[in-house]
Amino acid sequence: MKSESAELDRLEADCRLIADQAKHASRPLAFASGASKDDWLLRSARAVGDCAGEILEANRRDVEAAPSFGLNPAAIDRLTLTTKRLAGIAQSLRDVAALPDPVGETIAASRRPNGLDISQVRVPLGVIFMIYESRPNVTVDAAALCVKSGNAVILRGGKEAGHSNQALARVLVDALEPSGLPRHSVQLVATTDRAAVGHLLALPERIDLAIPRGGESLIRRVVAEARMPVLKHYDGICHVYVDASADLAMATSIILNSKVERPGVCNALETILIHREIAAEFLPRLGQVLAEHNVEVRGDDATLALVPHATPASPVDWDTEYLDLIVAIRVVEDLETALEHIAKHGSKHTDAIVTNDRASARRFVLEVDSAAVVVNAGTRFNDGGQLGLGAEIGISTDKFHARGPCGLRELTTTKWIIQGDGQVRG
Amino acid sequence: MKSESAELDRLEADCRLIADQAKHASRPLAFASGASKDDWLLRSARAVGDCAGEILEANRRDVEAAPSFGLNPAAIDRLTLTTKRLAGIAQSLRDVAALPDPVGETIAASRRPNGLDISQVRVPLGVIFMIYESRPNVTVDAAALCVKSGNAVILRGGKEAGHSNQALARVLVDALEPSGLPRHSVQLVATTDRAAVGHLLALPERIDLAIPRGGESLIRRVVAEARMPVLKHYDGICHVYVDASADLAMATSIILNSKVERPGVCNALETILIHREIAAEFLPRLGQVLAEHNVEVRGDDATLALVPHATPASPVDWDTEYLDLIVAIRVVEDLETALEHIAKHGSKHTDAIVTNDRASARRFVLEVDSAAVVVNAGTRFNDGGQLGLGAEIGISTDKFHARGPCGLRELTTTKWIIQGDGQVRG
Repeated sequence: MKSESAELDRLEADCRLIADQAKHASRPLAFASGASKDDWLLRSARAVGDCAGEILEANRRDVEAAPSFGLNPAAIDRLTLTTKRLAGIAQSLRDVAALPDPVGETIAASRRPNGLDISQVRVPLGVIFMIYESRPNVTVDAAALCVKSGNAVILRGGKEAGHSNQALARVLVDALEPSGLPRHSVQLVATTDRAAVGHLLALPERIDLAIPRGGESLIRRVVAEARMPVLKHYDGICHVYVDASADLAMATSIILNSKVERPGVCNALETILIHREIAAEFLPRLGQVLAEHNVEVRGDDATLALVPHATPASPVDWDTEYLDLIVAIRVVEDLETALEHIAKHGSKHTDAIVTNDRASARRFVLEVDSAAVVVNAGTRFNDGGQLGLGAEIGISTDKFHARGPCGLRELTTTKWIIQGDGQVRG
Repeated sequence: MKSESAELDRLEADCRLIADQAKHASRPLAFASGASKDDWLLRSARAVGDCAGEILEANRRDVEAAPSFGLNPAAIDRLTLTTKRLAGIAQSLRDVAALPDPVGETIAASRRPNGLDISQVRVPLGVIFMIYESRPNVTVDAAALCVKSGNAVILRGGKEAGHSNQALARVLVDALEPSGLPRHSVQLVATTDRAAVGHLLALPERIDLAIPRGGESLIRRVVAEARMPVLKHYDGICHVYVDASADLAMATSIILNSKVERPGVCNALETILIHREIAAEFLPRLGQVLAEHNVEVRGDDATLALVPHATPASPVDWDTEYLDLIVAIRVVEDLETALEHIAKHGSKHTDAIVTNDRASARRFVLEVDSAAVVVNAGTRFNDGGQLGLGAEIGISTDKFHARGPCGLRELTTTKWIIQGDGQVRG
């Protein structure tokens, strides 16, 4: 017992040291020049190429061990690195280098009646703790976005990708000091002990933000344990509502793209709502197109009558994020019913309307309370790259701090700067 | 035991009902017109005047009972309403009505290369739970800011102000439906049972934000129990650093104003740091002025040698928010030492430099990691009114969501709106 508790104490002390080092690095990093940060990104991109051999070798060890962790073929594919994927990782570093530095951006400035010059300027958050699962590219993407936005980062990847993450992190860490950045700006938590996450989440004085990326159980655990703010999204139960006035060819194209282009992502379509006036004309056509793309349909009674291969939807279907080639379809009385359905079953992620009616579009945009509301376009545009943020660290369905795709700006806070000539309050 | 647990269940059910009603009201309130919200504010302002008799009578009962709650004379003064103070409360409602509506403001808009029109628009957070202590005007100020920003609000004031809060809340609630707003947009938690706060803080699906206003123990309790985000600040250990190049008359005026104009508030000065080169010239003069204004000085050795009435500062003084006519003074080697002192002992609230040296000012602004950094002006300008926000619900020393004074905009989030002509991702 004694040695077990000594072990625990040691792990806690190790975690505290990592957090202290990150905090210490974060102060000079906060005002490091944009040139140093970009130099680090480009240097790291080159090093990913130079060290490709050892990274791929480390990855090979992870892939070999993957079945013993119970990873299925899709998960093993996500874990696997290739020369081509490494080139993509290096390119993403160069892409982040090409983005404007968010730090120091003045977002508001004015002169007060008493002559004080006031401004609000973007500054880094401080220390970010990133907890993620088996895709090793997250190690690089997360570090790139955090450091570019002036934040020190503590990385904690999944044990299935342990060797890959260590090899990639070594490349990133080794490039820091040559670029003039503090060496603890990027740290990877090497232990596989799950308790380390809990110890780090208990340090709100040292860590300013936790970002979990992965399945719902990981995110719920982080939310439950974190003593600092968490940037997250749970799930994306995204809707397309086809209004009575919709262009039906457009509706088909939007539904198909939103559902099948990449069914396993959070901004993919899960539930289709169809105005009853067009159901008889639209649903048989839609059903056929979905069948051609191997999409399983679960429908309400009205849908079952019009789509031969549909099976009955159970109540739980309306609250399910399939992340698969399955879609739920409901025929609704009117826009009002669609809005109520989305309010009740949606996850406030991304919801779209297809309509040619201006009043319907306006009402949908006003009343749907989601991170992104879309008119006559696919749900998959709720994405940092698509919205011009350059790169994203995640998509927030929270309302606090940032909502929707989170890029470099969303990893900053602001500081008020007040400058005068001796003004005092009277 | 059975009836006690039934009592608990009932309280929990009551709290859940209040939260459900708030959530239900928040949906129509989120897109209520600015005209309705302003009509409610002006109607409430008139009603405060019309109902002055009953409000003052209710307040008289609270003031009479105040000594039994252990309130000291200063606290009783803050609790007491007068005809003049009621006029001030009504005026603050009219002031909020005069502010621009933050809801619907477009903060960014652009057209993407594929022709999609995208924009980011301000929308309300949803439901705000406000927990505060004995000043009854907070009931009105908080409701005004929350409703104007489109949020339903649940108010929980201190029991010492129970009758006053009920009388004021009645005025606000009665004005809602005549202005076309949902009647549960404003609710006061009437029970004095402390457990009600805990029950409400456990409802993150219904309440989007908790805002505690009061002493540190209240805020720590809310932070520990809240399952939703909290907008808060703990304390304001604000510094003025007097640089070697400072205009000493300006420094004296800034220090005096920051310390004595209102010593009990969070943006008041607590610690003075003085460059050693000017200490011998400046400190005796400053000491005399502080003595004339009855400010007790606690100093380091160098200060003790130059300020006759100073007493020795103990280590705890550098970490103390006095909220009183007491100030700590330390003579520092240089700007670097001042920056280190602030990083170590400050509370990231408001810190000022007095200097005529451009490089010192730039470095101080860059390196001090506080909600507001001030050059050649008093610390008390870190205030919503002074910074042009119109009115504030509090000053955040957090980095997440909002930092510094929080006005109407800080009570909103954003929504992405994506509009196209059938665009899909390829």
